[in-house]
Amino acid sequence: MPTETERCIESLLAVFQRYAGREGDNCTLSKREFLAFMNTELAAFTKNQKDPGVVDRMMKKLDLNSDGQLDFQEFLNLIGGIAVACHNSLVVKAPGP
Amino acid sequence: MPTETERCIESLLAVFQRYAGREGDNCTLSKREFLAFMNTELAAFTKNQKDPGVVDRMMKKLDLNSDGQLDFQEFLNLIGGIAVACHNSLVVKAPGP
Repeated sequence: MPTETERCIESLLAVFQRYAGREGDNCTLSKREFLAFMNTELAAFTKNQKDPGVVDRMMKKLDLNSDGQLDFQEFLNLIGGIAVACHNSLVVKAPGP
Repeated sequence: MPTETERCIESLLAVFQRYAGREGDNCTLSKREFLAFMNTELAAFTKNQKDPGVVDRMMKKLDLNSDGQLDFQEFLNLIGGIAVACHNSLVVKAPGP
């Protein structure tokens, strides 16, 4: 049986491939594929955004090589960024001396 | 109900906190905590390593600020690195022209 960490790595691969495989290069997310991913998998985030341009700007920021596509590493930077933001918001640091 | 991506982010946070909370600073993995994580969560990887120094060297490589501890971002770099390696080994690129 896979461990929690192994399951998580498998999930990330599976989710990426599910959306990247919809059209064009099946190793990258096009803007349409990225929008579909965001509106389905991270709907709780996108629903709270009043600015319709926010997902566009996220795509531009994540697309480090500016090829109009997100590869798996660029996709992971998003997941990592969200995870770090969640982690930081949960961690209440003790006040310094 | 959380989506697969949301569950995955939750898992990464939970796994990190489970090991980081064992001793010392509960926001970072000490070397002992990292070893426990590797031997439990990624045992399939560590079991295949004949070189006992490999986990030591991984820790040194991941510890970007060389403070002897892994913070959550450094931990995510490991998960991301494994996921990218898995992804690349699964992707068989078509031969070029």
